[in-house]
Amino acid sequence: MVAESLVHADLRGIESHGLSRLPIYVQRIEAGLIELSLPPEPVTRQGATSLIDGKNQLGAVVGMAALEEAMELARQNGIGFVGVRHSNHFGSCSYYAEKAIAAGMILLVLSNAPSAMAPTGGIQPFFGTNPIAIGIPAGEEPAYLLDMATSVAARGKIALAAKTGTTIPQDWAIDADGLPTHDPHKALLGSLLPIGGAKGYGLSMFIDILCGLLTGAAAGASVKSLYDNWHDPQNIGHVFLCIDVQRFLPVDAFLQKMDEYIREIKKVPRAAHVAEILIPGEIEQRKMAAHKQDGIPLTQTVVEDLNKLCSGYGIDLAQAVYRV
Amino acid sequence: MVAESLVHADLRGIESHGLSRLPIYVQRIEAGLIELSLPPEPVTRQGATSLIDGKNQLGAVVGMAALEEAMELARQNGIGFVGVRHSNHFGSCSYYAEKAIAAGMILLVLSNAPSAMAPTGGIQPFFGTNPIAIGIPAGEEPAYLLDMATSVAARGKIALAAKTGTTIPQDWAIDADGLPTHDPHKALLGSLLPIGGAKGYGLSMFIDILCGLLTGAAAGASVKSLYDNWHDPQNIGHVFLCIDVQRFLPVDAFLQKMDEYIREIKKVPRAAHVAEILIPGEIEQRKMAAHKQDGIPLTQTVVEDLNKLCSGYGIDLAQAVYRV
Repeated sequence: MVAESLVHADLRGIESHGLSRLPIYVQRIEAGLIELSLPPEPVTRQGATSLIDGKNQLGAVVGMAALEEAMELARQNGIGFVGVRHSNHFGSCSYYAEKAIAAGMILLVLSNAPSAMAPTGGIQPFFGTNPIAIGIPAGEEPAYLLDMATSVAARGKIALAAKTGTTIPQDWAIDADGLPTHDPHKALLGSLLPIGGAKGYGLSMFIDILCGLLTGAAAGASVKSLYDNWHDPQNIGHVFLCIDVQRFLPVDAFLQKMDEYIREIKKVPRAAHVAEILIPGEIEQRKMAAHKQDGIPLTQTVVEDLNKLCSGYGIDLAQAVYRV
Repeated sequence: MVAESLVHADLRGIESHGLSRLPIYVQRIEAGLIELSLPPEPVTRQGATSLIDGKNQLGAVVGMAALEEAMELARQNGIGFVGVRHSNHFGSCSYYAEKAIAAGMILLVLSNAPSAMAPTGGIQPFFGTNPIAIGIPAGEEPAYLLDMATSVAARGKIALAAKTGTTIPQDWAIDADGLPTHDPHKALLGSLLPIGGAKGYGLSMFIDILCGLLTGAAAGASVKSLYDNWHDPQNIGHVFLCIDVQRFLPVDAFLQKMDEYIREIKKVPRAAHVAEILIPGEIEQRKMAAHKQDGIPLTQTVVEDLNKLCSGYGIDLAQAVYRV
């Protein structure tokens, strides 16, 4: 599951959530901070809701258990709401959204994450970049797949700008005094900014309350870093909300409506420099098709990291590689 | 219900959704575009989901029926999902969120709205400012109440800038050619911009799909204007999603966790000019307390409009006014 989740992200061109994460996952397993022996376990299941204890398993394993539970609850009740505690970094949210789409269902996935973003008016990170992903199937047109952080930019993009010596847009981050900055070095000592100002702060807080406070996972500044904390499990929380379309109209009719709707959107008059209006997830879907054809262009850094990882386990990376 | 919804908005200082809307509601009733005789009616109710036909009733009447249904479903199933079609402008979303908070429940309200915002890359309005509101109860600390449009700014703010001859920030809107503009007149001929660029476009589209396509209400450019269309009902769609906290932990324990969490957020170090970190909805809650004490300061325009409306019905506005 973890391998599939990471390759899924690389196929979609989301390198930040691809094989580049494998070394840190393995390092945390080696450090005893991720549990491999116990499977995720339901704590309660009542009506259309479930609470799952991830038992500190690898995030993708916990996420898949929650997805299956949410889809099962939705089949029975029209909607399924699954809260998850004691989980870890669970890869790209789009991994789960894509599976729901394939099953003809609507899925909303939320997760909290380690501190990176201050509340509006604050200058120290408190909330994570708390992502939200939504998958909605379509017929012949590309499915809708939104996968977004509630911050304007990812911390990784700022780190990259610092490395390459470029400036960053002023709406990405504030410095340690809370002032807007174009300097990525100052931004890394400060705090990411939420989308839409106080609106993004509100959305991030909502995700944290549902994923953290409601489920019994960590929340706010208590969510542990994947990279910087070597003492504690992350105790990340997720929420999976699944809707069974056919409670409202036949699936075929819905897919046809989605197709017509998407075609209407694509027909909206465009700005001079815009060749085409794209649906959320369409760029990634095209990258996936291309990468399935031509292979995934991994960066030299990722290949070196994987080689290093493999050699420690007596594996020859070149022999392990194959094309889909 | 409508009166309460409008006064609720004015109490919170959200004048755009207060008594200023009463004249247009009455005009649409007079024009036969809103139905007063038939109550909203459930189309289907299965498991934890319902579909309600608003029967073109006043929006607040439809919204209250949907809220009660969502809360009832949540009590039975832990979560309740209610889709609504054939509705009208239903006032401020916060009206419903506040009632769920009072009942100790978590509520998410979505609504689509008439076209005002282009998809990313487009230059003509297609999506509404499709709002999202969320209510989450707290104990002694102020409850969390987020009520936001998925556009950066409301069209009304741009119209006001055009009237008063001021410029607007560049991230509010594009002109008719899709270019960023500081000129409110050009902006009014163009399109509002979503929060977070393509992220807000994605969120707005998600809300439209759920409220419009899934329920059988209008969607996209087919949602009728409250002000400019005098031939058709609006056919707005809503979604009410209610979560029963006690399926996950005792309500008292949750409220205590919320209080501790809010106190942590308020303790985050602040920027030099910031006196206090506020929780979503806190400003409005303070305004409400002040207005309940001192009365609501209606603008001269609203008072004149109400006078005009009243005189047509032989009502003396001065006699109708009282303090809470």
